Amino acid sequence: MNGVIYPGTFDPITNGHVDIIRRSAQAFGHVLVAVGRNPDKETVFTMEERVQLVRDATSDVQGVDVEGFDGLLVYFALKKRIRLVVKGLRFVSDFEQEFQMAMINRKLDSRLETIFMVSSETYTYLSSSVIKQIITLGGDVSTLVPRNVELALVDRFRLGARA
Amino acid sequence: MNGVIYPGTFDPITNGHVDIIRRSAQAFGHVLVAVGRNPDKETVFTMEERVQLVRDATSDVQGVDVEGFDGLLVYFALKKRIRLVVKGLRFVSDFEQEFQMAMINRKLDSRLETIFMVSSETYTYLSSSVIKQIITLGGDVSTLVPRNVELALVDRFRLGARA
Amino acid sequence: MNGVIYPGTFDPITNGHVDIIRRSAQAFGHVLVAVGRNPDKETVFTMEERVQLVRDATSDVQGVDVEGFDGLLVYFALKKRIRLVVKGLRFVSDFEQEFQMAMINRKLDSRLETIFMVSSETYTYLSSSVIKQIITLGGDVSTLVPRNVELALVDRFRLGARA
Amino acid sequence: MNGVIYPGTFDPITNGHVDIIRRSAQAFGHVLVAVGRNPDKETVFTMEERVQLVRDATSDVQGVDVEGFDGLLVYFALKKRIRLVVKGLRFVSDFEQEFQMAMINRKLDSRLETIFMVSSETYTYLSSSVIKQIITLGGDVSTLVPRNVELALVDRFRLGARA
Amino acid sequence: MNGVIYPGTFDPITNGHVDIIRRSAQAFGHVLVAVGRNPDKETVFTMEERVQLVRDATSDVQGVDVEGFDGLLVYFALKKRIRLVVKGLRFVSDFEQEFQMAMINRKLDSRLETIFMVSSETYTYLSSSVIKQIITLGGDVSTLVPRNVELALVDRFRLGARA
Amino acid sequence: MNGVIYPGTFDPITNGHVDIIRRSAQAFGHVLVAVGRNPDKETVFTMEERVQLVRDATSDVQGVDVEGFDGLLVYFALKKRIRLVVKGLRFVSDFEQEFQMAMINRKLDSRLETIFMVSSETYTYLSSSVIKQIITLGGDVSTLVPRNVELALVDRFRLGARA
Repeated sequence: MNGVIYPGTFDPITNGHVDIIRRSAQAFGHVLVAVGRNPDKETVFTMEERVQLVRDATSDVQGVDVEGFDGLLVYFALKKRIRLVVKGLRFVSDFEQEFQMAMINRKLDSRLETIFMVSSETYTYLSSSVIKQIITLGGDVSTLVPRNVELALVDRFRLGARA
Repeated sequence: MNGVIYPGTFDPITNGHVDIIRRSAQAFGHVLVAVGRNPDKETVFTMEERVQLVRDATSDVQGVDVEGFDGLLVYFALKKRIRLVVKGLRFVSDFEQEFQMAMINRKLDSRLETIFMVSSETYTYLSSSVIKQIITLGGDVSTLVPRNVELALVDRFRLGARA
Repeated sequence: MNGVIYPGTFDPITNGHVDIIRRSAQAFGHVLVAVGRNPDKETVFTMEERVQLVRDATSDVQGVDVEGFDGLLVYFALKKRIRLVVKGLRFVSDFEQEFQMAMINRKLDSRLETIFMVSSETYTYLSSSVIKQIITLGGDVSTLVPRNVELALVDRFRLGARA
Repeated sequence: MNGVIYPGTFDPITNGHVDIIRRSAQAFGHVLVAVGRNPDKETVFTMEERVQLVRDATSDVQGVDVEGFDGLLVYFALKKRIRLVVKGLRFVSDFEQEFQMAMINRKLDSRLETIFMVSSETYTYLSSSVIKQIITLGGDVSTLVPRNVELALVDRFRLGARA
Repeated sequence: MNGVIYPGTFDPITNGHVDIIRRSAQAFGHVLVAVGRNPDKETVFTMEERVQLVRDATSDVQGVDVEGFDGLLVYFALKKRIRLVVKGLRFVSDFEQEFQMAMINRKLDSRLETIFMVSSETYTYLSSSVIKQIITLGGDVSTLVPRNVELALVDRFRLGARA
Repeated sequence: MNGVIYPGTFDPITNGHVDIIRRSAQAFGHVLVAVGRNPDKETVFTMEERVQLVRDATSDVQGVDVEGFDGLLVYFALKKRIRLVVKGLRFVSDFEQEFQMAMINRKLDSRLETIFMVSSETYTYLSSSVIKQIITLGGDVSTLVPRNVELALVDRFRLGARA
């Protein structure tokens, strides 16, 4: 086994994501964080920015690599010779969507297996979109995202990128 | 205690919302209906129109005030010196989204407490978006929204605002 | 009883839809597949194309008619003198949304009854949007949609309609 | 098609059950109410009593037959030459349990198809066990069950069967 | 308004219950904890013991009364002239069961209103039955229940009450 | 990492369990199937029988050990020096119960991590209790459980153990 892959859009990475990365690295020795494009909506940060935010936010965790990727996760994972996909579970709606993706990925390549981990209960309510909503409305996100992400968010929204 | 705050987009107010307002006013003495902006999509009615529609639809209920607000609910609630937020629950998906918002709001200000009420079973299937869908497709919404809202909807969609 | 009506956007029809059509035709003798407009987002295929894709994909099933329709389902169903609406159930989130629509349709016309069927477990994870996501990312959908739909998807996305 | 079969324990029949029976009879012409044993716990009423309570409660509905049965539903249904099983859906937990049973029954005999109907919103909160709980605690169930069932419940619990 | 009533079996009270009691007392000024019988299964502690455990566990919270009760909650609440029932929500399955009880209670007496509160995320996974399972299996529950409850549990299960 | 532990009651093991065992062994190299006592209800098979049924049903899978255990899973897992617990997910209700157990186990020992796997869609509807229900009612379970389990079930229920 060559560790696991942890895919997502990470727009931006939250403390909940960091928690899953930390647990994955500890449980499986190595985790490749795969930063994907969101085909459904525009992201606040470019892929390069999102990759860099994840790198900086996890620089103190051993056994983590971060890469951007295009196309289907199954192809990227198998090119990297990784067969285990890690996903974080928070809510029931999460579960159903993730269950669907796990089944589809298995259909696309039966060698790919999805495993689910539960983040600390402190982070079950966190999501990237909630973070963006709070910052847009002028709220404080310092306890919800890593410090470098907070600075990037303030910078982005003060410069009027979405204002 | 200075009563409760009932926040929402109310685009437009439905009979289900009116039911929750009526129950809140009766249970807590006073309810401030806080009409917010929807950061995610354009509304059919302006904030001023939505505030007026809520006012007219609840004019016969004692102990109701209606105000528009910008920014985070926590800041608005605390400026108004109200610590109890009321939300209506209909479905499981409601529950999860509202649970998440309640946790986030508590994180942003621990003095704010969210309480959930269940509307009459007659209204569990109602939502503002279902109302708009029906009126767009030429259906009759007279039993689903207050009379003033029905007139406003017919007026808005006949004039071609979204046609 | 004049059979059942099976409404949807079918953008495009999947093997899961075909499974429900086959089961409906067998259980109720006749099924009218009603291809509707999606008021919420643009479709990849025009209504005419979607009707044709459904027709070709179900040409070997006895007792199937396919028609496009505008406006509310209740009016279309009653014009066709059909009182039973069939919907497929896969997930909990499906259930809640469909439950809401069933209640609303019953409210709009109490003669209309919605019944739910469960597709084969092989198709529970399938949806039109997952199909489109896979094809956009260069994946293989040959086991997920009928052959004619696969060809249409490849044709559409190679020609750059959404690229 | 020879109508549908509506199985259950009916210990005792509630207004919600009557609603589904009425809708089934109207939609499918004929409904066979199949009163089964509950393998998991003792019933308050014997099978003969439960059959009689259902008969009396539905005597004004056309196209209804009531029978007790032992063993697997699939065998009973096919002996009766009925291939459609009707189940009522109220809650998400209902849905999952019923979904499981539908899949199992299809596995046991692929000719059997389960369809789900939604009862009136007035009855979504009703269940036989809630009824028994209320009557045990001395509450009034006159708006929740047919008149004959109310009398039978009062009679049974006054005589101390479970007191 | 005369505060709220918080009903339950409390066999035994957990830190999650204490959290809801604390929040209720703060939000509504006064909370009457109503310790009921569990009609469905035998309790580990008698009603008197459970009342005392709740009293001791909440002795430092202002505005709390604790009483045992028999029969239907609606009758007890109205006898106490309290019209607001508080329930804690943790999970989706909670929600459905509680939603059902809220509807039933409203049906039994329309003056009774149920409101739901969310406990701290630290306690979302707690329940009395999980506590009993852990203690039975020899686990440590010191961070999950108040100190007096821990002692009572150890005492009860060491003495072999359920061993 | 020393592989994973897969705990359960396995009364009896189903094809769904075997599927998870097979996937775990392949993904993690080694899986210890931990057959526990069910504190809540009597089992059909003794622990020794259940261990043997699991052993025989998985004898062709490489990297599988089977053991019975008493007490808390966390203590057993850590005694075995295994820190990863595998659980299968099928339904939403599964998810909530398993989520709760994962949180509790983490609370009892923070070194223990629970990961969830999804069985093949062919087995999502399977459970030990459904199997027992079918066999009790005289149904055929040959496609739902391994051959040795089918024989044991027929033997057990023909001899009247629960008849």
